Amino acid sequence: MSNKPSIPKGTRDFSPIEMARRNYIFDTIKKVYKKYGFQQIETPAMENLNTLIGTGGDESDKLIFKILDSGDPQIKADWNGILDSSSTLQDLVIDKDGNYVFEKMPEVLKGIDRTKFINEFSEKALHYDLTVPFARYVVMNQNDISFPFRRFQIQPVWRADRPQKGRYREFYQCDADIIGSNSLLNEVDLIKIIDDVFTELFKGELNYTVSINNRKILAGIAEVIGEPDKLIDITVAIDKLDKIGIEKVLDELREKQISGNSLEKLKPIFELSNDLQENIEFLEDLLNNSEIGKKGVEELQFLFKYVNQLGLKSANIKLDVTLARGLGYYTGTIIEVKVDNFPSICGGGRYDDLTGKFGLKDVSGVGISFGADRIYDVLLDNDLYPEFKGDSTQVLFINFGEKEQDYCLPLLFQLRDAGINAEIYPDAAKMKKQMKFANDKAIKYVVMVGSQEMESGKLTVKNMESGEQDSLTINELINSIK
Amino acid sequence: MSNKPSIPKGTRDFSPIEMARRNYIFDTIKKVYKKYGFQQIETPAMENLNTLIGTGGDESDKLIFKILDSGDPQIKADWNGILDSSSTLQDLVIDKDGNYVFEKMPEVLKGIDRTKFINEFSEKALHYDLTVPFARYVVMNQNDISFPFRRFQIQPVWRADRPQKGRYREFYQCDADIIGSNSLLNEVDLIKIIDDVFTELFKGELNYTVSINNRKILAGIAEVIGEPDKLIDITVAIDKLDKIGIEKVLDELREKQISGNSLEKLKPIFELSNDLQENIEFLEDLLNNSEIGKKGVEELQFLFKYVNQLGLKSANIKLDVTLARGLGYYTGTIIEVKVDNFPSICGGGRYDDLTGKFGLKDVSGVGISFGADRIYDVLLDNDLYPEFKGDSTQVLFINFGEKEQDYCLPLLFQLRDAGINAEIYPDAAKMKKQMKFANDKAIKYVVMVGSQEMESGKLTVKNMESGEQDSLTINELINSIK
Repeated sequence: MSNKPSIPKGTRDFSPIEMARRNYIFDTIKKVYKKYGFQQIETPAMENLNTLIGTGGDESDKLIFKILDSGDPQIKADWNGILDSSSTLQDLVIDKDGNYVFEKMPEVLKGIDRTKFINEFSEKALHYDLTVPFARYVVMNQNDISFPFRRFQIQPVWRADRPQKGRYREFYQCDADIIGSNSLLNEVDLIKIIDDVFTELFKGELNYTVSINNRKILAGIAEVIGEPDKLIDITVAIDKLDKIGIEKVLDELREKQISGNSLEKLKPIFELSNDLQENIEFLEDLLNNSEIGKKGVEELQFLFKYVNQLGLKSANIKLDVTLARGLGYYTGTIIEVKVDNFPSICGGGRYDDLTGKFGLKDVSGVGISFGADRIYDVLLDNDLYPEFKGDSTQVLFINFGEKEQDYCLPLLFQLRDAGINAEIYPDAAKMKKQMKFANDKAIKYVVMVGSQEMESGKLTVKNMESGEQDSLTINELINSIK
Repeated sequence: MSNKPSIPKGTRDFSPIEMARRNYIFDTIKKVYKKYGFQQIETPAMENLNTLIGTGGDESDKLIFKILDSGDPQIKADWNGILDSSSTLQDLVIDKDGNYVFEKMPEVLKGIDRTKFINEFSEKALHYDLTVPFARYVVMNQNDISFPFRRFQIQPVWRADRPQKGRYREFYQCDADIIGSNSLLNEVDLIKIIDDVFTELFKGELNYTVSINNRKILAGIAEVIGEPDKLIDITVAIDKLDKIGIEKVLDELREKQISGNSLEKLKPIFELSNDLQENIEFLEDLLNNSEIGKKGVEELQFLFKYVNQLGLKSANIKLDVTLARGLGYYTGTIIEVKVDNFPSICGGGRYDDLTGKFGLKDVSGVGISFGADRIYDVLLDNDLYPEFKGDSTQVLFINFGEKEQDYCLPLLFQLRDAGINAEIYPDAAKMKKQMKFANDKAIKYVVMVGSQEMESGKLTVKNMESGEQDSLTINELINSIK
């Protein structure tokens, strides 16, 4: 056995101080979600493979961590007629397309599907987001749910992504979705939630922007520039505007066979001002001949009207016609939140048919997801965490030996019963060692009891922050802490 | 795609009410752990296989859910010289010993080890408990930890067990361990924690017993009856006393070649009374010639002395010389908690060398683990949950149409800003539908605003529990709820 234990790449341990910070973020988000009527659910870490496969496209499928069948691990392969009988396991390699192939196989047998091969050994996998399990949950429990259903879910997800700074293979998502309602008031609530959460976490000290778009506007644009079939290509390209600039976006669109004429019509949307009214008017004008585009503008207007009427505490909100967020399953509103110099810290949108895959049609949903790990980094970089006093031990009794220890034990339990986090050093170790322990654990009060204290009933209490020493009865100590 | 989604056997979804109950259990345990100076950590769901394999014996290894390599799924097989080149994947079957074998393989190649085969595809797995990951964490972070380290950890674990009533493949453990101290005061704290947690959860309405034993006593018994090498056989058998009775235990011992003479010496320990002092004296007498046995008695005496001095709020505590708890890695105190008619709801003990596997020797630890799922069932069966008022939505605004809705929205946000969980029905649906929604979600207050209310500023507030209707300003409503 190796003497140097390690953890899988892309995963992390969380130390006590990291846990305190993470719980602070989760608790803040949870409290706000509840204020808006959301209820918590949890789904298992593992789902059946056929629940997960094919919901987020091929790219998502590749990110799925599959679990080997256990308990009854019979290999179910029915490879008769597929495998050449002269091929063996040692001939199995991966070709450039990621397929398993047998090197010595005849041409006709090449390109055996990798998924199919792996599925011989696996029928379960770890969920890679919380949205697909939620859709599955809604369908399975549709008779017990009162719609519109406001649910939140805070759990880890797993992705077989290439690990890199700020990107992990195991990380937490904090999702809130409303399912079973088309009303845009739901979007208004989600934007107000974002405002409430970051008002509390950022304490007014950080600038952040909530960007809004609508998939129907993107569809309308593709329509009016004469390229309705190239909606995906167009949005994937213009989504990159921030990163690569106008010229490279135009290059990419040319590569996708978008005509020069269409590109000319597209250009103005790269040059929009920050004036909301001006931009709405521009879009109304541009999309005048697109039914879907006009619908998108209408939805945007509703959203901005209500958000502005109700007001935001600290969020900046803007219309960003180039926002697409991968476009996966969004069909209406698209939302993304950014702080300067950080990747997106929250995002979401409306999807019209997520439960369709599981047999429940025409149920619209809209949701957001806070990226806890990125928010963690933003708060740390900007020194925005509270001090977490009282999360750890508040009082340590020094252990001077059996007699003193026996005197201290009932006092220790008096503190605990009063709700104060306290402990006694379990051995009569050297004073220096015990004080170092108190220091390392950032314990504020150290109680020292010798013969004098046992006689008088007054404990010597040292405040480790100020260095001051006091003589207190146990009740005085309890009152001074509470 | 199937129209009937499902989840893997042995896993569960948790609905909002189930989540409220589970959080209540977790929060209670967490609060008590913190009072005793324990700090929370988290470790990843997945660990490297070599961290997990071989820590809990073969039985545990079989329970491990392995994860297929992803990202770089090159098959690393070096089967040259092992596989017969005429064998193919379709020849692979499992023999009666659970090994993968190739049917057409020559005799000499039979019996390829199943673990070895599967490891070709997997180098990670889901943790099956929180103790092994904790030991790995301690070794990796030993330079940053102040010992004795009191840590708690509340996370799901996964076991490829045969699912049955009350036994799941994914379930939560709530562990607290103290590592780096031999002091038996740690055991005293753990027993007091058990007492605090169940005093709060059971509210004095349920009888429960904390059984205590010590592995050194079991070793001493094996020694004095003349069978020191059969310690495991003896403890495995007498651990079953509760379930199968004395006669069958003796049968099992006879099968294990324990002599009649030894059995005669063993018999009295099956017939101990409930009198602690009497039993201690019996053990002192019995184990007089065993050094390890005498040490065990001493430890027990220390434990009972301190626990009795400090007192217990609601727990019954007893010495149970037949308690072994599988014996896996315990080396000293053994603890188990039971309520009548339920399997163990909490257990633990001391282990002297858990970190040894990872290269850190001579670090003693002691810990307990609450079984949240069983405690859940005990509380439910005995109707011991609080009502969870205010966990869900407290106030619903009925939506009568755009004008009324626009009037209500700022009031809704006033409630939320006051910390009250509130929502507005997002569409002007039929009154009956909206009232049913309020009922289904157990919302206590329903606010109705028509033209009269908009004029007077007095809202019509219906208390859904009492049926009473009031006319209140928004501030009066806020005050009456808070």
